[in-house]
Amino acid sequence: MLRHSGLPCALALAVAASTILAGGASAQSFRSLQTPAQPLTLKARGSFFVGGRQVEQTAAEIVLGPADSVTVDQMYVEYMIPDGRVKTPVVLIHGATLSGKTYDTTPDGRMGWYEYFVRKAHPTYVIDQVGRARSGFNQAALNRRLAGDAAPAQAAAPTAPGAPSATGAAFRLGDRIGVWQNFRFGPRPGEAFPDTQFPVEAAAELSKQGIPDLTPQVPSPNPTLKALADLSSDLGGAVLVSHSQSGPFPMDAALVDPTGIRGIVALEPGTCRATYTDAQIVTLAKIPTLVIFGDHLAQPTGLSPLTWQQRLDGCRAYAERIKAAGGRVDILAAAQDGLRGNTHMLMQDRNNLQIADRVLEWVDWLPRRAVR
Amino acid sequence: MLRHSGLPCALALAVAASTILAGGASAQSFRSLQTPAQPLTLKARGSFFVGGRQVEQTAAEIVLGPADSVTVDQMYVEYMIPDGRVKTPVVLIHGATLSGKTYDTTPDGRMGWYEYFVRKAHPTYVIDQVGRARSGFNQAALNRRLAGDAAPAQAAAPTAPGAPSATGAAFRLGDRIGVWQNFRFGPRPGEAFPDTQFPVEAAAELSKQGIPDLTPQVPSPNPTLKALADLSSDLGGAVLVSHSQSGPFPMDAALVDPTGIRGIVALEPGTCRATYTDAQIVTLAKIPTLVIFGDHLAQPTGLSPLTWQQRLDGCRAYAERIKAAGGRVDILAAAQDGLRGNTHMLMQDRNNLQIADRVLEWVDWLPRRAVR
Repeated sequence: MLRHSGLPCALALAVAASTILAGGASAQSFRSLQTPAQPLTLKARGSFFVGGRQVEQTAAEIVLGPADSVTVDQMYVEYMIPDGRVKTPVVLIHGATLSGKTYDTTPDGRMGWYEYFVRKAHPTYVIDQVGRARSGFNQAALNRRLAGDAAPAQAAAPTAPGAPSATGAAFRLGDRIGVWQNFRFGPRPGEAFPDTQFPVEAAAELSKQGIPDLTPQVPSPNPTLKALADLSSDLGGAVLVSHSQSGPFPMDAALVDPTGIRGIVALEPGTCRATYTDAQIVTLAKIPTLVIFGDHLAQPTGLSPLTWQQRLDGCRAYAERIKAAGGRVDILAAAQDGLRGNTHMLMQDRNNLQIADRVLEWVDWLPRRAVR
Repeated sequence: MLRHSGLPCALALAVAASTILAGGASAQSFRSLQTPAQPLTLKARGSFFVGGRQVEQTAAEIVLGPADSVTVDQMYVEYMIPDGRVKTPVVLIHGATLSGKTYDTTPDGRMGWYEYFVRKAHPTYVIDQVGRARSGFNQAALNRRLAGDAAPAQAAAPTAPGAPSATGAAFRLGDRIGVWQNFRFGPRPGEAFPDTQFPVEAAAELSKQGIPDLTPQVPSPNPTLKALADLSSDLGGAVLVSHSQSGPFPMDAALVDPTGIRGIVALEPGTCRATYTDAQIVTLAKIPTLVIFGDHLAQPTGLSPLTWQQRLDGCRAYAERIKAAGGRVDILAAAQDGLRGNTHMLMQDRNNLQIADRVLEWVDWLPRRAVR
């Protein structure tokens, strides 16, 4: 267990005291679930897939049965559409070693952005990246290697910041360095910043959201990019919200097809790519973009030679290129805007709905901007 | 693509014509999504985890960062609680190579059991099994093997019917044999039974629900069992609904702790175990159980030496043992009860809500039975 230093026990007790769905004694996270004051009324909800291709595989690749076809590279999407008049659809994209769970109920049982956006009249779509969770991954190369085939599984380079060269291995982020320090809950594992916004008493619950990341088995270009572009078009226009490793996905998706991408919100992107060509920047400059970073950005991550401050600096350079091409990138460096202690997991921080309001204010401004 | 023989084109066109959320031209499944006539009002919804343990892993096992702890063996749960007076909570458990998606929107865009049960006043909980989807899996042994460690990943025996001995490999079911024939859409791949209830024109969408099954990496006993027992207790009592490979999970969970398990519904269980001891049967006899099988049970599966008829026969033998111990197992062999053409994917068949009504009628009878 992670040590929960830096926060008074009273805080954890306060969370427990607000429990509504109390039951037995086994699941900490279950006891912490909070019931909203008002019910949620949905016009529709459900799930579907975008993309995917049927491929032939050998018996050794399928394992359970003879040679046959399977589908790979499909993208899982769950959605909720609020009842009544709706605003711009939003698509929520998670980061490395995580799943769409990122945007649902927070580790300490509060409402996540998925439900909050819907309550604010936005049809909201949450994806699992290809290579993760309910989107699955192509297990063929992995099984060939397990059966003794020495060839590298696939030549695809991992896209996660700090990931090693492609070995085909499934990677995770560790609790102490990969998450606590790298996500800036505090200066050292187990020690929280006095002003941290992350509910660090529930850090063990965030750890449960971590799953093996099979991005090294995902082909290049990542099928998630086209799936995001297609989904945006299917929705008749959407704002793409990315996080961390998926930071540049909305831009990369727009370079596949910008038709449906009305706006981009990048939450602490792993990178704002410096490698886009001038022609690509012209395309990207047509899409309003908001970049958000939290606090304590200069701290060494323990994981990557790059600090989050350097990643923010990279996004400022990107913003300059976009501006020179006639576009606009708004940057919210939260700590310079009165929001202190925000972490890499902005959407789960204690003030997550305050951050959400900033995002939605920006999103709701887009249609007015479009008619100008 | 699978051939869609056996069904008139008019049927597929009728589905397309009922489209509500029509948008662009890319995602077949998106265009088929149907909006219910009435909105859905929820008291609460969200997701959480049950169980899980923090373990120390080496840098080679984590890959992205130094040696650190991670959490493994946690079980993801999503839930919806209807507004107003509620009936018995229900937990929906998916089968091999699938995820909780099984019980959501059907491959052809109709309402799944997850939402339907909620609309019928049941708080409903959908899990991803440990080793799959948003529950993830322990990637350590896999990474050790990829790095050249020749030792078997883990001694755990795969629990999927027909699965080979543990190699650590991730398995899937192929479209033609593993699904079409084995799930009894028709007598041969691409050829549907004239009375099939599965929406075979959407078989490619079902294929997208298939993901690599890491059950060979899951320890024994499967942590999902204790997690199900704990969840049931936390809920203050629940009915567990299992399917296929997870068929015996509710019984196995009850043998961990029967406290919260009010009833069991096993949908075409891969097995009703003949290996329970007489003492175990005494425990299981206290839990009302419903077993449901579809049609065309005698057809060779192409995958396992056992037909589904033989699995039903095994459940009848189990029912006899339970009866001898003073308990009761109700068996609904759909084809003998006027329901023709049902497949292994009963919860996705065209008459899925009719089957759901049978299940809920039985579930709603449980409290009355308990007071007798």
